[in-house]
Amino acid sequence: MLGVDPGLSRCGVGMVSGSVQRPVMVWVGVVRTPPNRPVPERLAQVHAELTTLLSDLRPDAVAVERVLFNSNARTAMGVGQAAGVVLLCAAQAGVETIEYTPTQVKATVTGSGTAGKDQVAYMVKAQLRLTEAPSPADAADALALALCHLQRGGGATTSGAMSPRLAAALAAARVGAQVVRPGSRPGGMS
Amino acid sequence: MLGVDPGLSRCGVGMVSGSVQRPVMVWVGVVRTPPNRPVPERLAQVHAELTTLLSDLRPDAVAVERVLFNSNARTAMGVGQAAGVVLLCAAQAGVETIEYTPTQVKATVTGSGTAGKDQVAYMVKAQLRLTEAPSPADAADALALALCHLQRGGGATTSGAMSPRLAAALAAARVGAQVVRPGSRPGGMS
Repeated sequence: MLGVDPGLSRCGVGMVSGSVQRPVMVWVGVVRTPPNRPVPERLAQVHAELTTLLSDLRPDAVAVERVLFNSNARTAMGVGQAAGVVLLCAAQAGVETIEYTPTQVKATVTGSGTAGKDQVAYMVKAQLRLTEAPSPADAADALALALCHLQRGGGATTSGAMSPRLAAALAAARVGAQVVRPGSRPGGMS
Repeated sequence: MLGVDPGLSRCGVGMVSGSVQRPVMVWVGVVRTPPNRPVPERLAQVHAELTTLLSDLRPDAVAVERVLFNSNARTAMGVGQAAGVVLLCAAQAGVETIEYTPTQVKATVTGSGTAGKDQVAYMVKAQLRLTEAPSPADAADALALALCHLQRGGGATTSGAMSPRLAAALAAARVGAQVVRPGSRPGGMS
């Protein structure tokens, strides 16, 4: 179960596996693009890094935050464009996508649709039994999306079987989260 | 000079060459995706068809309509996602992109920033000396974007030289416009 919080400056990506009762973090990171570069180039970077991640992590489904346009128009445009590229990557990788609104994610993970960022991060940390809350917020939001999809039954079909690749990933995940830095290739699963 | 009017249901694409004084239509078409299919799949179709078009038409620059969020949120989201994929395609093809607001395009092509669709189509028909106005409006808007960019000096560097490929394209364009239908591969330049 991969969660993606789309964004042009920071695109949170979090992978969760296991059962609803005992979810396990497989991977977490943030794809960052330099704000001083042209938007098309930054979208191409998001596309390249996400394509690599999908190929490495091989999720069964991708939960994506549904973009809402109640914030300022300039940010919303960038998020909308990034969301388009995220959905494109999933389609090109042949992976099913499900969109959740921020309210749905908060309500599922914290019990309150109006929960704050800190509360979401706290619940993600608690449910995944992490030693500290994922940072930045985009990383926590991505894991919250994956947890939301798992809790809403999205993980039912995959809870029985575990591939050797996934088992190795789970073992690696116990070491701690990896965060993608600009220019670096995610190496958590390769 | 390629103009692209991004959209999920209909994405207008128009290629214009020649000088400001005598612009010539090279190609016009609309990439359509079926509204009953999932959004990620439709974005993948836009990506595939635009990538083919960019490879066939080899424009020097792509003029893209800047998405505005004053219309309804659901449509704006689809347009924003499609715009992200259009900008991505251009970056992946190594082609420079320039964004114009609808007001800039209307003002440049018709002299009025508040011109209607009919007026834009009329001026596109007149300036490109077409026998009839391009239809649907997305096709006319794409050509208007290309004309706008040409008139604002974007075409200055390319007006001197013409490749054999472009010359052949210009000859082919005299036959008339081609419109991409769902599922068909654009063949105007291959």
